[in-house]
Amino acid sequence: MKKAVVLLSGGLDSSTCMGIAKNEGYELYALSFDYGQRHGRELESAKKIAAHFGAREHKILKIDLTQIGGSALTDENIEIPENRDTEHMADEIPVTYVPARNTILLSFALAYAEVTDADAIYIGANALDYSGYPDCRPEYYTAFEEVARLGTKRGVEDRPIEIKYPLINMTKAEIIKTGMKLGVPYELTWSCYKGGKKACGVCDSCRLRIKGFREAGYRDPLEYETDIEW
Amino acid sequence: MKKAVVLLSGGLDSSTCMGIAKNEGYELYALSFDYGQRHGRELESAKKIAAHFGAREHKILKIDLTQIGGSALTDENIEIPENRDTEHMADEIPVTYVPARNTILLSFALAYAEVTDADAIYIGANALDYSGYPDCRPEYYTAFEEVARLGTKRGVEDRPIEIKYPLINMTKAEIIKTGMKLGVPYELTWSCYKGGKKACGVCDSCRLRIKGFREAGYRDPLEYETDIEW
Repeated sequence: MKKAVVLLSGGLDSSTCMGIAKNEGYELYALSFDYGQRHGRELESAKKIAAHFGAREHKILKIDLTQIGGSALTDENIEIPENRDTEHMADEIPVTYVPARNTILLSFALAYAEVTDADAIYIGANALDYSGYPDCRPEYYTAFEEVARLGTKRGVEDRPIEIKYPLINMTKAEIIKTGMKLGVPYELTWSCYKGGKKACGVCDSCRLRIKGFREAGYRDPLEYETDIEW
Repeated sequence: MKKAVVLLSGGLDSSTCMGIAKNEGYELYALSFDYGQRHGRELESAKKIAAHFGAREHKILKIDLTQIGGSALTDENIEIPENRDTEHMADEIPVTYVPARNTILLSFALAYAEVTDADAIYIGANALDYSGYPDCRPEYYTAFEEVARLGTKRGVEDRPIEIKYPLINMTKAEIIKTGMKLGVPYELTWSCYKGGKKACGVCDSCRLRIKGFREAGYRDPLEYETDIEW
């Protein structure tokens, strides 16, 4: 059975990505990071999603990105922005950008893929809806695939590890439609930048998610603190 | 003043690399890793070398590679080989290979370079003398430079971060000759796989170092447990 390492944050995108990998017939090795997030709510979701899809293994690596800093998600001195115009989010690199984050996460996924002899790495990166992050562009992943080919045992043996980024050109609505068809349990996922019992419904991440569900024609099964019109 | 992040293990190669970066006029940001090495002796050397070259900052990141495993350097169940034929070491991938290690180290260097707005990253990788590691080939670094260009803020702003690997085609003897000219204090460096007070003189790493000093026509200023003929 072919194997895949799936980067799983517990958010909507990575959980959908896991559903896609499962559907494509891979044995799943979920990889999550405890990287100094402000709250552990996402990791709880990741565990539930990995269990739901029957992952062979779910590895949670502790890597403390607060040691590097430079982002609102890992540096408590930087405010998380609210109420930005969702139409123009992609125009600038947001303060929630974590320096070289996807490169760091992919490099660990590559190590894990070497150890498990996995054929592919799935990452739920997306270039459209929530962009402005330089490491969410397709050409970046092509470049990383070349690094993976040249920098690993498997590459030397001419069995290179494939980097799969199936969500890259989907809108949030398309991602949700795909996930709904595959039975992704969105009530178990977490997107909110805050760590409350219910999602805040106000932060950029919540607003993009809500907008996506609306456009996809579904009601988000997740509970929100605020009343959302569907 | 242009800035460089220098990956500094405290070994002979990375310490020489730091001397080269200094000589090329960069302000130095040393980056070391506490990654579950079997001993902390190398890190002590890294601190001394960073201080010697007047690094602006020396960051030691704790990343626990034992969580991934798969190498004799991070997994206590795998034996470190001794007395291999130094002429044929390059023919196979050694058990001391840490899966995707250089990719992981470079990705953190990239994050650190973004935060410090550094112009370059120096890595003391070497393709000749102690090879068989897939991530020590020049084309691998070219590929990573492309990842760095496409995956960072600086790349987007058309000020890409350069990946410098000046030792890549040097023999160990050439590295040592270069370092001696630049005044690299080799007595402060550490190459031995073991963590004793003196270097063992027997492990692959010690033997390559000793051979390098002999071929360069110098006596290694480091103390060894065994009597070495120079």
